[in-house]
Amino acid sequence: MVKQERAARTREVLVRAAAEVFAEEGFVTASIAAISKRAGVSAGGLHFHFGNKTALAEAVARRASATLRTITVSRVSDGNALQALVDSTHELMELLARDPVVNAGFGLCAGTGAVTLTARGGGAGWDLRVQWQRWVEGMFRAAQREGRLAEGVSPQAAAAAVVAAMVGFGVLGAGGSRRFGPSGVTPYWQLMLPRLAAQGSLGELIPAGSGAVRASQPH
Amino acid sequence: MVKQERAARTREVLVRAAAEVFAEEGFVTASIAAISKRAGVSAGGLHFHFGNKTALAEAVARRASATLRTITVSRVSDGNALQALVDSTHELMELLARDPVVNAGFGLCAGTGAVTLTARGGGAGWDLRVQWQRWVEGMFRAAQREGRLAEGVSPQAAAAAVVAAMVGFGVLGAGGSRRFGPSGVTPYWQLMLPRLAAQGSLGELIPAGSGAVRASQPH
Repeated sequence: MVKQERAARTREVLVRAAAEVFAEEGFVTASIAAISKRAGVSAGGLHFHFGNKTALAEAVARRASATLRTITVSRVSDGNALQALVDSTHELMELLARDPVVNAGFGLCAGTGAVTLTARGGGAGWDLRVQWQRWVEGMFRAAQREGRLAEGVSPQAAAAAVVAAMVGFGVLGAGGSRRFGPSGVTPYWQLMLPRLAAQGSLGELIPAGSGAVRASQPH
Repeated sequence: MVKQERAARTREVLVRAAAEVFAEEGFVTASIAAISKRAGVSAGGLHFHFGNKTALAEAVARRASATLRTITVSRVSDGNALQALVDSTHELMELLARDPVVNAGFGLCAGTGAVTLTARGGGAGWDLRVQWQRWVEGMFRAAQREGRLAEGVSPQAAAAAVVAAMVGFGVLGAGGSRRFGPSGVTPYWQLMLPRLAAQGSLGELIPAGSGAVRASQPH
């Protein structure tokens, strides 16, 4: 049992180190030696847990996907889809800023090689951007059913705008600009919500996030 | 004279080939040999025009910056800043989809290494994203002076939203999705303009672009 726990911990350390090295050097350039050194795990230990670099990249994508699911799935029953969406973007930007696994999984930006590979290798389900895009569009459709989406707003166009903006916030926020990244999310929703929310429901929405549901760490 | 023209043509072919190889392999991985092969120019010829890979990356950034300037500068006196902005986003997305030089200059996405390098090596002026962000914010301020910006809209927040969305459209459109890239720009503005334009000026704006000013190729 203790042995199993230690193995799980080692795998986690390796996945995190791989994500960091992928993000810094890109998947193609990243070496197994650099990952094993970063993780403080011997090359033999690395090979025991992950046969090769592709297996590591797949593990990064899987872990990132699981983390993304904790941000989204926990909100489905929240009752206010637009607020759930606002909250999720705050958490996603925080994650992209501090979690190298989610960052590499999302492919922003030096890690592109890794994401392309995992998206192809692991099927569309591994592509975090697609996973997130579907969820965002689902939230806009839910808001429409709730009567909280402004009339004439297309859930599809709204989802494209929000997903693109958040990808851009991730890319541009990586440069350290305060206009993008986590600190840009509240001004973004202050701008967008008056367009997206139906009259009468704007007042109940909090652009800074409701703080009601915090994402828990995935198992 | 003929000799000078031939030299200029060779430099252009080399810059384009370098941009393509940077975009495909990233700056760090890209080899001089691959660029010279792609351009159909001998290694000696490449070294005659560009001393090293960094000089090539700077030429890519300079050329991309000049192209971006033709999209933006020509519009300053158009008289309707919001329409000028809409038009410029259409042209930028078209350029990102078909011009490898602009694409590599913008650093979307495998070419990040190149952009980071040129942004540092060539000063902030080379950073296309910053150049474009400043222009977008200037357009929103101009719209405000014209009385065409909706009340309560912050030019800064609006610029951040539009710039981030366009970076996201560029990144996500590279995967071939029709929701992003050039075909996503009109639905984007159909969504955004009712929020951004002052009452009374919305009717004069064309989300699909006015088509009045086409970007000319830079010299």
